[in-house]
Amino acid sequence: MNPDIKRERLNASFDVEKVTYILDGGPEKTKRRREIESLVFSDPDFNEEDPNFLSRSERYDQAIRKSAQMVLKLREYGIADPEEIYHYKSCVHPGRPSPLDLHLAMFLPTLLNQASPAQMDHFFMPAWNLKIIGTYAQTEIGHGTHLRGLETTATYDPATQEFVLNSPTVSSIKWWPGGLGKTSNYAIVLAQLYTLGNCHGLHAFIVPIRDMTTHEPLPGIVVGDIGPKFGFSEVDNGFLKLENVRIPRENMMMKYSKVEPDGTYVNPPSSKLTYGTMVFVRSMIVGESARALAKSCTIAIRYSAVRHQSEIRPGEPEPQILDYQTQQYKLFPLLAMGYAFTFVSQYMTEIYHRITEHINQGDFSELPELHALSAGLKAFTTWETNSAIEVCRMSCGGHGYSRSSALPDIYVEFTPTCTYEGENTVMMLQTARYLVKSYRQAKAGQQLSGIVSYLNESQNRRVQPQAVAARPPVVDINDLSSLVDGYKQRAAVLVEVAAKSIQQELQRRKSQEDAWNNSAIDLVRASDAHCHYVVVKVFNEKLKGIGDTAIHSVLSTLAVLYAMHGITKNSGDFLQAGVVSVPQVLQISVRIKELLSQLRPNVVALVDAFDIHDKKLNSVLGRYDGNVYEHMFEWARRSPLNATEVHESFHKYLKPLQSRL
Amino acid sequence: MNPDIKRERLNASFDVEKVTYILDGGPEKTKRRREIESLVFSDPDFNEEDPNFLSRSERYDQAIRKSAQMVLKLREYGIADPEEIYHYKSCVHPGRPSPLDLHLAMFLPTLLNQASPAQMDHFFMPAWNLKIIGTYAQTEIGHGTHLRGLETTATYDPATQEFVLNSPTVSSIKWWPGGLGKTSNYAIVLAQLYTLGNCHGLHAFIVPIRDMTTHEPLPGIVVGDIGPKFGFSEVDNGFLKLENVRIPRENMMMKYSKVEPDGTYVNPPSSKLTYGTMVFVRSMIVGESARALAKSCTIAIRYSAVRHQSEIRPGEPEPQILDYQTQQYKLFPLLAMGYAFTFVSQYMTEIYHRITEHINQGDFSELPELHALSAGLKAFTTWETNSAIEVCRMSCGGHGYSRSSALPDIYVEFTPTCTYEGENTVMMLQTARYLVKSYRQAKAGQQLSGIVSYLNESQNRRVQPQAVAARPPVVDINDLSSLVDGYKQRAAVLVEVAAKSIQQELQRRKSQEDAWNNSAIDLVRASDAHCHYVVVKVFNEKLKGIGDTAIHSVLSTLAVLYAMHGITKNSGDFLQAGVVSVPQVLQISVRIKELLSQLRPNVVALVDAFDIHDKKLNSVLGRYDGNVYEHMFEWARRSPLNATEVHESFHKYLKPLQSRL
Repeated sequence: MNPDIKRERLNASFDVEKVTYILDGGPEKTKRRREIESLVFSDPDFNEEDPNFLSRSERYDQAIRKSAQMVLKLREYGIADPEEIYHYKSCVHPGRPSPLDLHLAMFLPTLLNQASPAQMDHFFMPAWNLKIIGTYAQTEIGHGTHLRGLETTATYDPATQEFVLNSPTVSSIKWWPGGLGKTSNYAIVLAQLYTLGNCHGLHAFIVPIRDMTTHEPLPGIVVGDIGPKFGFSEVDNGFLKLENVRIPRENMMMKYSKVEPDGTYVNPPSSKLTYGTMVFVRSMIVGESARALAKSCTIAIRYSAVRHQSEIRPGEPEPQILDYQTQQYKLFPLLAMGYAFTFVSQYMTEIYHRITEHINQGDFSELPELHALSAGLKAFTTWETNSAIEVCRMSCGGHGYSRSSALPDIYVEFTPTCTYEGENTVMMLQTARYLVKSYRQAKAGQQLSGIVSYLNESQNRRVQPQAVAARPPVVDINDLSSLVDGYKQRAAVLVEVAAKSIQQELQRRKSQEDAWNNSAIDLVRASDAHCHYVVVKVFNEKLKGIGDTAIHSVLSTLAVLYAMHGITKNSGDFLQAGVVSVPQVLQISVRIKELLSQLRPNVVALVDAFDIHDKKLNSVLGRYDGNVYEHMFEWARRSPLNATEVHESFHKYLKPLQSRL
Repeated sequence: MNPDIKRERLNASFDVEKVTYILDGGPEKTKRRREIESLVFSDPDFNEEDPNFLSRSERYDQAIRKSAQMVLKLREYGIADPEEIYHYKSCVHPGRPSPLDLHLAMFLPTLLNQASPAQMDHFFMPAWNLKIIGTYAQTEIGHGTHLRGLETTATYDPATQEFVLNSPTVSSIKWWPGGLGKTSNYAIVLAQLYTLGNCHGLHAFIVPIRDMTTHEPLPGIVVGDIGPKFGFSEVDNGFLKLENVRIPRENMMMKYSKVEPDGTYVNPPSSKLTYGTMVFVRSMIVGESARALAKSCTIAIRYSAVRHQSEIRPGEPEPQILDYQTQQYKLFPLLAMGYAFTFVSQYMTEIYHRITEHINQGDFSELPELHALSAGLKAFTTWETNSAIEVCRMSCGGHGYSRSSALPDIYVEFTPTCTYEGENTVMMLQTARYLVKSYRQAKAGQQLSGIVSYLNESQNRRVQPQAVAARPPVVDINDLSSLVDGYKQRAAVLVEVAAKSIQQELQRRKSQEDAWNNSAIDLVRASDAHCHYVVVKVFNEKLKGIGDTAIHSVLSTLAVLYAMHGITKNSGDFLQAGVVSVPQVLQISVRIKELLSQLRPNVVALVDAFDIHDKKLNSVLGRYDGNVYEHMFEWARRSPLNATEVHESFHKYLKPLQSRL
């Protein structure tokens, strides 16, 4: 082991293993996760070539090979718990989505949720056994978030009892579904249902797209890969153009709404149940944020511990990069964020399970709040993480640009979370809608409960941003709970600013919709402040459950750093809200420097606690043993351009050129 | 042409062509640029396959082919002016660096600047005629910015009158030089010179690395490609390990320092001339920032004009994305930044040329200021642009992830500017060193001139952050010059904060170096504020030279938006500095919304004015005609994964799997 990193580990003030348990949710979870990891990493069937050395087609090929192996082995080992499958899969395809993801995560669940019993009999077992490989085709080339805008049509023909599916325009071509391009032979297609001359809006249809034996596209189906992307090279995101494709009436998903053989449309019982799925998916994405941050910080901090550069004091040896204040200021707040988001992810999972129980008992009361919160936190954590990964990458100097660092891959595989499952700005506005509604309720005298209850107080305080700035500040910067309170007040002020902006627009005789659009900047800011408040609050509350003194101490330091860093980055908001004073902002800057020094001896241990297996991290810079350069050299020598000493282009172009000059 | 984008163009309030002249620096420059573009784009020898469809080796191959063509054609057409060569090259390799870049931009110039007359005779013509293809090998795998840390050795052997070059450790392997991996047969190697038992520090040596005929690596040379990176796929960034490589004494660059045949070392005449080159390269990078922003804004704004999504008013057709306030807020400040950075780049080029003249007359007085300014502006503009590209990309929804949008490529080709030619944090600290030195001079009563003269005033004002916050604000937010003044005052306060932090550390008996390191966060902030001030100042001054009323009006709106957006993003600083009051910050937020509406009809024309040829932009989303989706579909169908209808992996893995389940 590299002596620098060894020394870092000896200096840690706490028991790393115990922090891993906290992050995993208990020692049993850690144990089982490690068992699964060793199952995959010791299995030669999952050996792979570094995808960065392969062409797109070879990457796809390798991913299909490993996915097929995985399906066999999961059944062989009897691994069926979703969380365990997740761990297994994330070792088989470390950090990379795979072509079968949508089959497993969307096609099978949609069958389970929306197929009638007869459809289940017909489709489920073939899909379970991968005779049917399916995807979920909703987005079109010209249409995303707004479902009513989708153009694909499914017109019922009572004469043959079939639906005729069409992509009537270029903009209606299905676009982006994972696994659609080459892998799937079926797709669940979302289309506008027409029957007996009326449109009944969007419905789901089970559409065979490739021959079950030859895998050739069926008549009327134009299907293929949408081409290379920023990341997701293993996945055949696809397009699908439907040209008078006929499917039997029975292929419409019929659990809720129906079309009778004569074409009569039967309304679905109204249902808010899809909210639950969305909340679940978004809480998973918050978890992805935490994991991407954990990986990026692990790489950047370990490498900063072994990398020596320049000089602080002349004549002395080059210091570890980790000793530069600017490097600490780049990385330690992100490390704190990694812990914060992990705890937020745990918190969301807990309330999701709690509320699911309530729903099963018929109590839907908390669902709107959770739905709004999950939208905002999805956006907040993915945007923050997206920037953070790049800060980590650039903190590694030139080597952060090498694919061997893994940081470019972490970025390109993560960044789509800002857009998919709800574009972030749209998500923030969804949360804002809930906040403004709650604000109005509080203003109307209703007593709010739950996470927005602070809007009651703001009514009592009658916040006037101009006025409060002159008041003495209300935060004790040496007390984390008081800082959390400061975030709450900032959120309250920004929700009020947004609500007032809408009101002013309405007074100028704007329509509700224009008033909303003309206040959208304020609304996004309010949501952002609300989510930020939730994150610091959750971090603070997590600390209360930690008994080990040494661990409590170091995690408290992280929490205070996270909270203070957020205040300095948004000091205008906090000053405007009268939460802190100008001298306090300066004190916080000084305090942050002290916190950085205080954390310095523990940061390598704090990333070790994420316990990311070297094979999962797959980064020469982030290796546990710190032996960076020899492995980078070894990796480079395996690069395909080094397969021959002289590249053929020398003989083809350079040699002839020399003779012509 | 797409009717939406056509309508946008009809609505513009100014003459686009005239703005293009302003951006190019005059109508003649525009004319010549377009001539060169049509020379390349009409030349079938430069036809290419989309690199995103090629393997790394094929991309390298295609780049070498086109580079070879380019060298021939430049001579054929007699194009020799550096600016014209730049335009030509940027059409041949649109948006992509090439394997011969370092030969042209570093190897040949280094020969010109550092070779003795005898060396020129020997090496220059072969290099000019590409018999010798060279690169510049400075960085090592374990060493970057800090030149004294480089480990490669060149030990003089008087017995044979040779230098013996060695890479004594893994960390000393030369790493990153462009064109080193496969293309070059020579390298200028930077190594620690040892002669007669003494080390004389870093010197440059001309080292043959591959056989002139076979192109095979020479004995003692281990050379190859460093493997795939985030971008730069056409370039064979390379490694070089030297194992007792002997070169004649004459291969040390001898224009300045020398080693006599007996091993006597002759000191170079001291020289600050390399400052000039660094300033030039950094001003080029500021130009790259402006161009990357121009491209990204062109794509995002044109696509937002033709893309319809969701609804503002229920029942109405989906509006253009450009009508959403959040979209305007994302993009218009970046468009303003694109203009700002273009003018800053022009400004830097002008002062570079002016100061070069002074230097030629023996007047070095302005060089330190320019050197400091160029370092900071390089960092400021590249960091800002780096984030901005990603905002543009993500503002395009899912399609921003497609390589067909060009945005992923713009990002990966641009982001290295944050690290190369001086890592940004290091650059900011260089500027800070100048600022603190100037501050101390002013404090000691010296009258400063030039861009830092505002530090005189701050001495007069005796800035006390705590105190000033209570004073009435000093900025008239309706006056751009007054806003510029606000930026100046913010910079003055932050320079003072940083200088005082150092002072306080010294008072705690810290060494100068530790005091500096413990104040580094404040120093970077001060530099950032200084650079921001320079940018708004330059933008404001540029407006003074614009006579056309319509153009002056729209560019003024951009300038005010840029200045105000910067204030809201850093409102804590401005509040702390007492430059603006809390009510003013709220007024600015309202004013920004008005500016967005005001700019709305002109934004497509404002990006058109950048006049980026469709073939140079190479983006289906950014096409001038706005016909986005049909071309995206066409592009996707050409993707290599669509070469066959059924991918071989189906037969290899999926089919057999089905039979086993």
